[in-house]
Amino acid sequence: MAKPSVVIAHDPSPDIRSLYSDVLSAHGDLVFLPDLSSDQRKDALRGADAMICYNPRLELDDEDARNLESIGFVQLLTAGVDHVPMQLFPATIPVSSNAGAFGESMAEHAVAMIMAAAKRLPFEHQEMRDGRFNQFVPTKGLRGSVCAILGFGGAGRATARLLRPMGVTIKAINRSGKTEEPVDFIGTSDDLEYVMRGADFVVITLSLIESTQGLIGERELGWLAEDAILVNVARGEIVDQDALYRHLVGNPRFFACLEAWWIEPVRHGEFRLDHPFLELPNVIAAPHNSASTAGSQVQSIRRGAENMRRWLMGKNPENLLGDAERTF
Amino acid sequence: MAKPSVVIAHDPSPDIRSLYSDVLSAHGDLVFLPDLSSDQRKDALRGADAMICYNPRLELDDEDARNLESIGFVQLLTAGVDHVPMQLFPATIPVSSNAGAFGESMAEHAVAMIMAAAKRLPFEHQEMRDGRFNQFVPTKGLRGSVCAILGFGGAGRATARLLRPMGVTIKAINRSGKTEEPVDFIGTSDDLEYVMRGADFVVITLSLIESTQGLIGERELGWLAEDAILVNVARGEIVDQDALYRHLVGNPRFFACLEAWWIEPVRHGEFRLDHPFLELPNVIAAPHNSASTAGSQVQSIRRGAENMRRWLMGKNPENLLGDAERTF
Repeated sequence: MAKPSVVIAHDPSPDIRSLYSDVLSAHGDLVFLPDLSSDQRKDALRGADAMICYNPRLELDDEDARNLESIGFVQLLTAGVDHVPMQLFPATIPVSSNAGAFGESMAEHAVAMIMAAAKRLPFEHQEMRDGRFNQFVPTKGLRGSVCAILGFGGAGRATARLLRPMGVTIKAINRSGKTEEPVDFIGTSDDLEYVMRGADFVVITLSLIESTQGLIGERELGWLAEDAILVNVARGEIVDQDALYRHLVGNPRFFACLEAWWIEPVRHGEFRLDHPFLELPNVIAAPHNSASTAGSQVQSIRRGAENMRRWLMGKNPENLLGDAERTF
Repeated sequence: MAKPSVVIAHDPSPDIRSLYSDVLSAHGDLVFLPDLSSDQRKDALRGADAMICYNPRLELDDEDARNLESIGFVQLLTAGVDHVPMQLFPATIPVSSNAGAFGESMAEHAVAMIMAAAKRLPFEHQEMRDGRFNQFVPTKGLRGSVCAILGFGGAGRATARLLRPMGVTIKAINRSGKTEEPVDFIGTSDDLEYVMRGADFVVITLSLIESTQGLIGERELGWLAEDAILVNVARGEIVDQDALYRHLVGNPRFFACLEAWWIEPVRHGEFRLDHPFLELPNVIAAPHNSASTAGSQVQSIRRGAENMRRWLMGKNPENLLGDAERTF
């Protein structure tokens, strides 16, 4: 009996092709889409049983989508999938994200930004360049502080795991209001005000879906202490851009650490801001690179390939997307 | 019987005066030196059984020192004491530092700087301001990395305690080559080359004594990987300033996080550099403020006062200085 046909939609390096082969070739025949002529491509898609995509918006067009007649499963390699044009895939077949694949890297970046803001690293460096040596202006200690984590998937839980040993109290919210991770509080979006009031730090790791778009606006920012630190490693759209800019200008001791943006290259083809966030002294900006630690891409692809193997072996794949993610 | 007379040489705030009173008044009579006229001052010093100093260079002059006839113990409130003019105190009486008092705060600052450098926070922020969005340039992961810690007192051990839960391997050196702290390696200065070779990060928390002055020079920097990160939260003089500057210019991927400086306000009355470190893109500079977290001053004074109480109660005080610290 022929093995199922697994189409790889992106163009992997030789090392990654070997990785796919190691993980999958016992259970499926691999077809690398970018290697094919347009006739071969059409046949490959029509005969595909499963597919792995990195950035479907760039890898597949509407014509390709019409040929996905026999497909039974799609594995996406990114953790966030709000930028994926879901209409490319038949509505009835299962699609998995790679949620949590970059969780540890994202958590390290979130903690790096929290600590840089707590210790005012960029600000005091500039002060020294300007001739001021502020040795006795108090900075924030991590021990004894409180961190609210909004969204408690892979990245959120990994953030908690880094902060708790530092003596930071963790108050988290997720969809279920339940977690097996040790935390000081777990709730749902109903508890948003409770976890934000009194938090020294707020880390956003939520998925972007209809209910999280614009979740953090003027009212919610007003719940925070005037010297709180807000970290966004999820999606720009979860925070109201205008409200955040006004809040930063009006509260010079408030700090925003922004790694996720409203209009950014991978999702929108460019980086663009409505306000000059990069000029504010109370902003630490990062180019959505928290997932890009050395080795993290290979690890995440291995993780996606292993989930595909699970499907090929007749098991339930992990990280299946629900309606909220697929219809956003 | 009269209680022993404890002279406080610095000028504490009302809150700190209450703290001293709470901790010490059952065991000693407190005399605050800055409150006295010059005649009273002379009598107070002549009758002093013990003394607490913050920065003796500013608090006592040679005339005061000649009146310390009856003193039996001196408690210093700083962790590092290389800037203390030890000739102020009779050579035969015990002097304690406040070593470890700021260990946790210093460790947090050291880890904040390691992570900021590993994630290239200041560099990528500037890149974004310059219009470059380097989303896929790999940063360093903490998990799986190796940190050498030079000096394994309060700050060094606290640094290890923050880094180990992040998956960082700890290789430390101290004077004894022994520790009860869980580490992957502990050695002495004989092992300096071993711990520095292969380290992703090096954190200096050593005391400045004759044997550590200029310890890290051109040869030692040459042992490090070209993209290693060097953190100094101890004393500038432990690192050869010229050698470090040349190393930073010659190795643009190498990062130095400098919180301790060669010529700096508290110890020398001014901040001065022989080279423009603050202009280099691979330097993170901090104004020797790692100890200045909110509340840390109060905690450290409480710790010093409690050590004084130990002496007043006839117990052995902690952190007694040895010859190496007193003759440097």
